[in-house]
Amino acid sequence: MTTQEIADRLVELCKTGKNLEAIDTLFSDKIVSVEALGDETMPAVMEGRAAVRGKNEWWFANHEVHAASADGPFPNGDRFAVIFDYEVTPKVGPQAGKRTRMKEVALYTIENGKIAREEFFYSM
Amino acid sequence: MTTQEIADRLVELCKTGKNLEAIDTLFSDKIVSVEALGDETMPAVMEGRAAVRGKNEWWFANHEVHAASADGPFPNGDRFAVIFDYEVTPKVGPQAGKRTRMKEVALYTIENGKIAREEFFYSM
Repeated sequence: MTTQEIADRLVELCKTGKNLEAIDTLFSDKIVSVEALGDETMPAVMEGRAAVRGKNEWWFANHEVHAASADGPFPNGDRFAVIFDYEVTPKVGPQAGKRTRMKEVALYTIENGKIAREEFFYSM
Repeated sequence: MTTQEIADRLVELCKTGKNLEAIDTLFSDKIVSVEALGDETMPAVMEGRAAVRGKNEWWFANHEVHAASADGPFPNGDRFAVIFDYEVTPKVGPQAGKRTRMKEVALYTIENGKIAREEFFYSM
């Protein structure tokens, strides 16, 4: 698949809530995932598909998603950006029970036909 | 200035059309600017404040800007993203006279308190 095909497929899957299918089919085994923020239990940098899949499973299990959009892809060479916009209510943590809008920019890097790096840009 | 202060200032200046002031005050002398696309007269990669300022002057001289928005900043470490959304009519080139929407993600990297790299993600 070309970078454009991978990018289009990722957006299509995320638009329909199939984020885990995107991880299983488009991500490298050695994916590196970089959040803007992290802590001891959820470090900002995670490596490997199992860790990244686990982070996503945790997120979906612990947020009620009222609305989600994925705008893009916005390509440049072997990278592309996607704009995610969520309306969620966290089930845990200091924001538990509070409906919140979360907008972020994600940047993906392709290597050898797979997504090898994802980086998320946002404020809390 | 911190990364957050630089990011907030850049967005503030771009929201009010003061893009050239942002280049003059926030950019490194050795800024590297990376477009998604380029050609012989307007290469994708440009280096140095004079070249980047010239590219911006050319763009403003050759586009009628009907509306412009800058959404962000979206930070991660020493980088931040901004979402630009323009309604423009180009004055030159194959799209001359055609009102067009241009949405792009810009990614900025800070080094030593200045913006040292800007990268733009978009499709044409």
